[in-house]
Amino acid sequence: MNVRYADRMKLAKASFIRESLKLASDKSIVSFAGGNPDSDYFPGPELRRCCSQVLNGDWKDSLQYNISEGYPPLREQLLKKMAAMGVRGGLTNLIVTSGSQQGLDLAAKLLIDEGDEIVVESPSYMGAINAFQYYGPRFLEVKMDSGGMDMDDLERILKEHTGVKFIYTIPDFHNPTGLVMELPRRKRLVELAEQYGALVLEDSPYYDIRFTGASLPPVKFFDSGDRVLYLGSMSKILCPGLRIGWIMGGAGLVEKLVYLKQAADLHTNELAQRTVAAYLQETDMSGRLKLLNRSYCERKEIMTGIIRDRFPGSVRFTDPQGGLFLWMELPDQYNAQRLFDLSLQKIKVIFVPGSTFYPYGGHDNTLRLSYSTVGPKETASGMNRLADLFREVIPDP
Amino acid sequence: MNVRYADRMKLAKASFIRESLKLASDKSIVSFAGGNPDSDYFPGPELRRCCSQVLNGDWKDSLQYNISEGYPPLREQLLKKMAAMGVRGGLTNLIVTSGSQQGLDLAAKLLIDEGDEIVVESPSYMGAINAFQYYGPRFLEVKMDSGGMDMDDLERILKEHTGVKFIYTIPDFHNPTGLVMELPRRKRLVELAEQYGALVLEDSPYYDIRFTGASLPPVKFFDSGDRVLYLGSMSKILCPGLRIGWIMGGAGLVEKLVYLKQAADLHTNELAQRTVAAYLQETDMSGRLKLLNRSYCERKEIMTGIIRDRFPGSVRFTDPQGGLFLWMELPDQYNAQRLFDLSLQKIKVIFVPGSTFYPYGGHDNTLRLSYSTVGPKETASGMNRLADLFREVIPDP
Repeated sequence: MNVRYADRMKLAKASFIRESLKLASDKSIVSFAGGNPDSDYFPGPELRRCCSQVLNGDWKDSLQYNISEGYPPLREQLLKKMAAMGVRGGLTNLIVTSGSQQGLDLAAKLLIDEGDEIVVESPSYMGAINAFQYYGPRFLEVKMDSGGMDMDDLERILKEHTGVKFIYTIPDFHNPTGLVMELPRRKRLVELAEQYGALVLEDSPYYDIRFTGASLPPVKFFDSGDRVLYLGSMSKILCPGLRIGWIMGGAGLVEKLVYLKQAADLHTNELAQRTVAAYLQETDMSGRLKLLNRSYCERKEIMTGIIRDRFPGSVRFTDPQGGLFLWMELPDQYNAQRLFDLSLQKIKVIFVPGSTFYPYGGHDNTLRLSYSTVGPKETASGMNRLADLFREVIPDP
Repeated sequence: MNVRYADRMKLAKASFIRESLKLASDKSIVSFAGGNPDSDYFPGPELRRCCSQVLNGDWKDSLQYNISEGYPPLREQLLKKMAAMGVRGGLTNLIVTSGSQQGLDLAAKLLIDEGDEIVVESPSYMGAINAFQYYGPRFLEVKMDSGGMDMDDLERILKEHTGVKFIYTIPDFHNPTGLVMELPRRKRLVELAEQYGALVLEDSPYYDIRFTGASLPPVKFFDSGDRVLYLGSMSKILCPGLRIGWIMGGAGLVEKLVYLKQAADLHTNELAQRTVAAYLQETDMSGRLKLLNRSYCERKEIMTGIIRDRFPGSVRFTDPQGGLFLWMELPDQYNAQRLFDLSLQKIKVIFVPGSTFYPYGGHDNTLRLSYSTVGPKETASGMNRLADLFREVIPDP
């Protein structure tokens, strides 16, 4: 049968990460590909207690239709969390989403007309590119350096392209590079957005996954004019399976997001919302986060240690202070996809070739490594095998 | 701040039902407006047991990222349910959605380009109209009579408009009218879709909410060529708060829906999927459904009895054999919205003015009454008050 799909479906393709998730279910493969948080640190027993508390209590309401904005006590808890980061607001400023992936989709639906220009970091999170692309934007890629988004390059872009709808950024432990946007740039980003009439989408799922140093205020902290939509997520700091995220922003924007949320799925799973609300009410996450961060940091150290000691000297890489990912650049002439194929076949180790993080591909010499999914021993063994392979393929001059 | 929203946001408005949900939280108001199932019949204790079973078992996987298609054992259970209705298929034919509202949104995203023509019953479910409208279709309204969609009118439309993308129908206990599509029309619908190259979206959340008589085979039963996408839901037969729905269709269509699902929210809440899978594995729903249906039928009888005995004779109404809703038509010159305002203010009884069920409004003399949300005593008292008011406003000739 010849189905007449919508034009946007020409863009649909299997995501690399989704396909590599299937590979990762093969236990003989060491996967540095996915961004799954370590499930050993999920607070399973606590969530079980909170969940049965909800289902022993007002279970009739917990299983009924509810408002699209989200469960008010959960929103109160999330507002408290935002206030602790210096971002203040009320219930009308926050909507619960089915993970922050839904936040990306709803924000794109809210703002993008076909052909509209939007700015993304180069590289950027593939899941965001994927969500945005279905609304037909033109992606403008802004340079990054070790301090995050390059503000001079951003200003150049905003000057040249006067209609930019929004600037999408992951300021804290950026996916895929692990970089952090420097403090002065955060302030300047809001100023530039103001000046050129664009919004900012601040996507910050890794904010609390910090190994060292003090947290910086979110970009939204510098926003006095409802210029920034902040997307938060429970997936990396609690667990992803409950699909709880949120968007915080100006009440007018949030009201319109509520309309879209209603059309998209009426509301987020109510049992999950109440379970997470109970968990946040009763629990101080800081102890568990400390352990989680220590564990990620340990693996990151193993990973960077092996890269430093055993990988070809011509390979460049980031050394993140948090988050789940580091980024690697091979000398220009090498192709990470070919290395991926070789690596899967010969040593059963996988990672994500970097071109998938660019809206228009290219950058074939880059790749992303995740240190969140496998333990220290496997990290060491996988990275050592990768070192041998890389040295074979990329000889030192 | 002057936000440049996407053009589609011009259509965004607060839904009547959403607003009336807010009214319904005022306990002194009798609401025949919302379509909430009766929470007294949710299997709370059973779901609690299944949920804690999941969280006592493989909770690490239950709280982790999972595949966009949905939890395979849940899909197996849903396939079994579909097979019992005469619709057969495998895992590649079924995707779990976050309620069937998400199914409507994803199907629209899959198929609608701006300006595309789609057919909806006149009237039709406002939540579907709401989901579709954001993709910019032109709605073509097909007539209904007591046997459901008028197939001659459909054929006329398909002849006149050669590019119709899909025909959206709620064949069983249609929302808002409560009507059932006759058996021969189901077969003819698929034939017409084949002949004119359109797809069919069969939305059937009320299939099992039947008071009397035998179930008819779904439209999808007559589909030998992947022409029909079937949208199912747990919301009316189990509970809505867990947001579990599904789409069944040809593997090629479902594969593309999986891509869209991934961009929309990655996957549906995994804990809810596993809880419902366990519930379906262990429980025979038929006993509870029998009680639920008996209870809805009793209230429906009270409602239609009072309409018959005490409402103005000039009022016409449907007498459904299932589902949650009946439909009323006042004489042409009366306006249901004005009656709503009067009713809320004077007797604190609410319903849904019918114009909201038409994509381009109009039909101001129609309204929808739900018999699922309040008990028999309140139904009687609310309907008697409504009878008095209607007789006052609409004098018998």
